[in-house]
Amino acid sequence: MPPLPVKEAEKIGEYDLFVIGGGSGGLGTARRAASYGAKVGLAEASHRLGGTCVNVGCVPKKVMWYTSEEASSLRHAAAYGFGNAEENDKIVASFNWPKLKKKRDAYIERLNGIYDRNLAKDGVDYHEGYASFVDKNTLNIKSLNGENYTIKAKKIVIAVGGKPHVPTDEEVPGASLGIDSDGFFELEEQPKRVAVVGAGYIAVELAGIFNGLGSETHLLIRHGAVLRTFDPMLSDVLLPWMEHVGMNVHKETGVTKVEKIDGGLRVHQKNGEPIDVDTVVWAIGRHANDNGLGLDKVGVKQDDKGNVIANEYQETNVEDIYALGDIGGKAELTPVAIAAGRRLSNRLFGPPEFKDDKLDYNDIPSVVFSHPPIGSVGLSEPDARKKYGESIKVYTTRFRDMSGAMLDENQKQPTAYKVICEGPNERVIGLHMIGVGSDEILQGFAVAIKCGATRKDFQATVAIHPTSAEEVVTIF
Amino acid sequence: MPPLPVKEAEKIGEYDLFVIGGGSGGLGTARRAASYGAKVGLAEASHRLGGTCVNVGCVPKKVMWYTSEEASSLRHAAAYGFGNAEENDKIVASFNWPKLKKKRDAYIERLNGIYDRNLAKDGVDYHEGYASFVDKNTLNIKSLNGENYTIKAKKIVIAVGGKPHVPTDEEVPGASLGIDSDGFFELEEQPKRVAVVGAGYIAVELAGIFNGLGSETHLLIRHGAVLRTFDPMLSDVLLPWMEHVGMNVHKETGVTKVEKIDGGLRVHQKNGEPIDVDTVVWAIGRHANDNGLGLDKVGVKQDDKGNVIANEYQETNVEDIYALGDIGGKAELTPVAIAAGRRLSNRLFGPPEFKDDKLDYNDIPSVVFSHPPIGSVGLSEPDARKKYGESIKVYTTRFRDMSGAMLDENQKQPTAYKVICEGPNERVIGLHMIGVGSDEILQGFAVAIKCGATRKDFQATVAIHPTSAEEVVTIF
Repeated sequence: MPPLPVKEAEKIGEYDLFVIGGGSGGLGTARRAASYGAKVGLAEASHRLGGTCVNVGCVPKKVMWYTSEEASSLRHAAAYGFGNAEENDKIVASFNWPKLKKKRDAYIERLNGIYDRNLAKDGVDYHEGYASFVDKNTLNIKSLNGENYTIKAKKIVIAVGGKPHVPTDEEVPGASLGIDSDGFFELEEQPKRVAVVGAGYIAVELAGIFNGLGSETHLLIRHGAVLRTFDPMLSDVLLPWMEHVGMNVHKETGVTKVEKIDGGLRVHQKNGEPIDVDTVVWAIGRHANDNGLGLDKVGVKQDDKGNVIANEYQETNVEDIYALGDIGGKAELTPVAIAAGRRLSNRLFGPPEFKDDKLDYNDIPSVVFSHPPIGSVGLSEPDARKKYGESIKVYTTRFRDMSGAMLDENQKQPTAYKVICEGPNERVIGLHMIGVGSDEILQGFAVAIKCGATRKDFQATVAIHPTSAEEVVTIF
Repeated sequence: MPPLPVKEAEKIGEYDLFVIGGGSGGLGTARRAASYGAKVGLAEASHRLGGTCVNVGCVPKKVMWYTSEEASSLRHAAAYGFGNAEENDKIVASFNWPKLKKKRDAYIERLNGIYDRNLAKDGVDYHEGYASFVDKNTLNIKSLNGENYTIKAKKIVIAVGGKPHVPTDEEVPGASLGIDSDGFFELEEQPKRVAVVGAGYIAVELAGIFNGLGSETHLLIRHGAVLRTFDPMLSDVLLPWMEHVGMNVHKETGVTKVEKIDGGLRVHQKNGEPIDVDTVVWAIGRHANDNGLGLDKVGVKQDDKGNVIANEYQETNVEDIYALGDIGGKAELTPVAIAAGRRLSNRLFGPPEFKDDKLDYNDIPSVVFSHPPIGSVGLSEPDARKKYGESIKVYTTRFRDMSGAMLDENQKQPTAYKVICEGPNERVIGLHMIGVGSDEILQGFAVAIKCGATRKDFQATVAIHPTSAEEVVTIF
């Protein structure tokens, strides 16, 4: 549905619910509320629905991950007996980044269209503009064509998401010569040489994509490991493999200056020689996207990082104002925002059975689309040890999965799994995986862990042979 | 370890346990028993350990499946932006079957060696020869070099497995011109044209491999569907897709005669024109491998198909004689044989906690390595309806997974999932999946189902985005 014309928007009476932000969380909240017959409006300040996930996050990232996996597959073809006689039994292929980028953009646009139609189908008014608080039941909407109007709502949900953090030029001279993950998705050409700064999952994913697609890739990390909020085994396996496949990992370092040089950028670092590249990507974290919401006008509390503080029911300190999704700064994942939003709407507008509905923020599974991918749910070993001390048992396995059976020795990807159990019944409280397929394997185990599965339950389940996943139930 | 020389073998006193058959089940039984200090011997009549799975089953089959997936990946490369300027942005590659076959054989030989060493490490005597019953505690071993000797054992386990069924030339004239799945793994050259006869998982897998690798492939099935013991949704999705990717599926038919013609074989069928091919593969089922065991001498009961009848504790009707694995004709899967064997040895030789140990044959997950792969656990919809009637609820979803996002319309593989729930709490009693990754996704869900997971447990688990697996928890 096209966004509401301003003239029409001004005539609207009071909404039962108004959602600020048309990303995963906002859409989930608005559509679920409307499904119960509530009068619902939603404002989105960019030109497209879907938020970070659809436009500059999960979805285009996964397309690029698949592309990088495809490149890897081409490198493996000869080992499987495929070849080209003229090329001495190698597969020679070039990669056309602009062609793929155009296809990817078209795919995202199709998704945007589906989101538009879904909103319309569910009867949610779509306001295309910036919403900011006038008072606790009134929002000013500055539409994208510059006009202003106000709307009234009984309840308001803040779901404006987050955005990448980039240092200022004062903090790091020349920082603005770099791009962030949003900029990554705008790259029209593949950089021949790239420096990715950061050690979190976004840095790992983007560096993996560049490296897989043949860019000379530098990863600059502050300490000696990546993914430091995850179980340490994952970095212990991933980082050496990243180096093995040709990534230049610069450890215990940081960017002190970026400068423009002939034909590129020179990255000066704390520890080591300067690096000359075409593109610098900042992937040092994300923060709340709270610009201009006018939260101070209604007294909604934020923490010192700008995250809007909400309780387990997504309630802020101000009655009838809720917050969910990345603006809260915890468990910043699409399905978390969707689930939190749907449950909030269930509770506010749904049948009595949902009167206490809320999202349980424990045991949320998550995946990193590294090469090979990572899956993780529950406590890391250090966290488990801190919480449960000596009552935990840790089981690990490392192997090279069967997809590598025909590959050259140096092509065989590592796999490592860790299962953490607690108490006399050995309840499984953590599962951490790296290796081909971990992204897909995790979901079912996350259900089992949610059910309180113990070591005995894992062992009672017959293995599926030959798979990687079977090693999780035979690890003990 | 090299097999025991006959002279030495003859000097051996009575074994605590003797296992006939060095496949997955036999090895699992023998090694577990030896780990408890039992004196254990094992006879294997082929020249190599590992049985069907390692030599002519799961393992080389999966290597071929990966190879066929690799071929598919090469066909998809252009859609991802990979190309070769000289080839008008296509990847042109030929496939070298003999090269791959040689590598695959070498891989299997390495595995055989590992099995040898594991047996030796665990102190199990390896007898290379045919074992047959003399009496209930005595076996004759006819060693592969032709010498005969006898051994004594307190307990004997029959784990000789199964073998492919092929019609006799009386049943189908010219049947012996065809090969079976064992012969598939001996093929030194890729047939240009092949007819696979059968509708079970082996037929589906072999036909999928041939077709993926570019052979003109004919699949001849007796009825209108494949995988008829599985949930019907799986065939409903797979069969049209097989046809879509160029396989010639001949339905409601059967082979009436195979004849040698110039440059190949002519397959005459019940319903339709004769088909000219280079190779005919019989994949119409497997049966117990009971030749020459001398079961009649000790009175071990078999069913009318020759399967050795054993109870849930793997006990045959004769005291101290057990049977497990494919010789029993049910749940013919490697991990089932291994689990049954280990539990038997736990019970017979392990600590008191295992005094009732046995394998639960319910909810055994299994996978079909079709393209795309299939995963299945619990009851099919027809079986669930028969058992529970109106108290079941069935949830299904069909979609095209994200790995197809950049592919051409005609390349996008189908995905379909079905979750079957029962009773007021909607306990999950069946999960059936076809689509990329189903082989790996299933294992964790099988654990959850073993834990008695309900619809609520599935829904309480946060989805992992973007994956295929998440659709299982959001299916409701």
